[in-house]
Amino acid sequence: MFAERTQLALDLVGVFFFAVTGALLAARKGFDVVASALLAGMTGLGGGVIRDLIIGVRPAALEHPVYLAPVVLAAGVVYLYYPHVPRFRRTLLLFDAAGLGLFCVTGTEKALAAGVPAVSAALLGVTSAVGGGLLRDVVAREVPSLFRYDDIYALPAMTGAAATAVLWRLDALSVWTGVTASVVTFALRALAVRYGWRAPLAYRRQAPDG
Amino acid sequence: MFAERTQLALDLVGVFFFAVTGALLAARKGFDVVASALLAGMTGLGGGVIRDLIIGVRPAALEHPVYLAPVVLAAGVVYLYYPHVPRFRRTLLLFDAAGLGLFCVTGTEKALAAGVPAVSAALLGVTSAVGGGLLRDVVAREVPSLFRYDDIYALPAMTGAAATAVLWRLDALSVWTGVTASVVTFALRALAVRYGWRAPLAYRRQAPDG
Amino acid sequence: MFAERTQLALDLVGVFFFAVTGALLAARKGFDVVASALLAGMTGLGGGVIRDLIIGVRPAALEHPVYLAPVVLAAGVVYLYYPHVPRFRRTLLLFDAAGLGLFCVTGTEKALAAGVPAVSAALLGVTSAVGGGLLRDVVAREVPSLFRYDDIYALPAMTGAAATAVLWRLDALSVWTGVTASVVTFALRALAVRYGWRAPLAYRRQAPDG
Repeated sequence: MFAERTQLALDLVGVFFFAVTGALLAARKGFDVVASALLAGMTGLGGGVIRDLIIGVRPAALEHPVYLAPVVLAAGVVYLYYPHVPRFRRTLLLFDAAGLGLFCVTGTEKALAAGVPAVSAALLGVTSAVGGGLLRDVVAREVPSLFRYDDIYALPAMTGAAATAVLWRLDALSVWTGVTASVVTFALRALAVRYGWRAPLAYRRQAPDG
Repeated sequence: MFAERTQLALDLVGVFFFAVTGALLAARKGFDVVASALLAGMTGLGGGVIRDLIIGVRPAALEHPVYLAPVVLAAGVVYLYYPHVPRFRRTLLLFDAAGLGLFCVTGTEKALAAGVPAVSAALLGVTSAVGGGLLRDVVAREVPSLFRYDDIYALPAMTGAAATAVLWRLDALSVWTGVTASVVTFALRALAVRYGWRAPLAYRRQAPDG
Repeated sequence: MFAERTQLALDLVGVFFFAVTGALLAARKGFDVVASALLAGMTGLGGGVIRDLIIGVRPAALEHPVYLAPVVLAAGVVYLYYPHVPRFRRTLLLFDAAGLGLFCVTGTEKALAAGVPAVSAALLGVTSAVGGGLLRDVVAREVPSLFRYDDIYALPAMTGAAATAVLWRLDALSVWTGVTASVVTFALRALAVRYGWRAPLAYRRQAPDG
């Protein structure tokens, strides 16, 4: 649905921002620069690879080694500038949110293009958006940010992915509507961070007499 | 080998019971309701998806979004009734055992139907039965119940999966023999819990002079 | 590129040595013998299975149940001889290094044979070599040895995999050059252990004025 070049450019930008979060975690945990690049790669490429394995297509990152460029760039940037990064924490959360916005839309679109039912395509879009971060947190032994009760992470991605699937069903998915869905996802995530939004817990707290 | 409707019904029941264990863990860990649904989905669908990826077929849950219904139901039931659930701990272990019994048989059968050698099919049956729980424990940072020395979890699944493969080799796998294998697996697991059965440790304790 | 029998023999030897590291970890963590076999299997077969899933071919271990023999053997050897093993710690690190050397070369070769671009093939070779150990450490809740700052693990595998891909591009990959690449990888890893080599950290330490 998107032109191939547009798709590739969006992908590489998304991979870069997620890869930065992996390299930053590696730096915080005292890993070496090789582990930093490996963790950056798992974070930036993991979500898309899991999606492609489930769909049953060969991962784009495998066919096009250019996908490794943003990973290496991310590890390099963190290597050179890590001590300055904490000042930019807000900027980074925004970049992560931009990655989330991009991947939930492009991931859903790729699944739809592979002939997956719309509901499953939306879930694969969410998988693309949150899978790399989950892999990063699990292999680095962190509490997955996906599961933190004090933050809303998956819901904006679900919203963007569902919107993409609905647009497609209405035959209204284009670069412009897709970008709009990305921006809305980005904005929801940014607002959730800014205002500390939370979702209800996994169980209903009941009154003593309840 | 099973009628398609029978297969689907057994699958949905198995997914539901495993999904409940995921949602319960989410509640115990203080995750929010979205994380609860995600963890329920990984637990209920994870084992089958891993099996299907290894076989090389598109996961059934992807083609039939109805597989999401038991996941949402499980998260909803835990959301509404969590404070009452601890009273039912024994019931829950039995339900988990029922899921184990179902999945080791249906998982082996699906692998055999895909033309996998019998030994590998039995192992994929075990993977279907224990994979979702392993994924649940790993992403939620728990000691995998699969590895607990004070409990027998994998052995009943191995027994049921091996029995299914043997029945198939003897051309005797039908709904009735399959259900019998499920029930035997269920009973072995239930007895292991009831009587605290343990397997030998990973190394032989030797006498001081040994 | 290698004769099928040679390939199989190299694979089984590599699986055995990695499987031993899984069974040893199971013994150290107090798991039972079934969990030991499961962890040995994940360690010995995990890297190759992940590689094959990404390439999109059915894992060799699935088609040829003989791949289970070294796994069972490893769990059995550790069961019988664990208390004696610590004396052989150096031997074991060497065996692990031999597995690393074998898998980074054969993994790269299998990916090249499947028509993957050379750069991606080298990365899949690294995945084959380090994937099983990463899976072992993650499911057993250990700090992944892949990420330890005080040890060099991934770099020798990267060197061997890159050398294999370059040899292939130069049309010079044969059993003899492949074995040479394996031996060089093994030697690099063994020297890294012997002399405590380290890679630079994920970020540049800067002078106070930097």
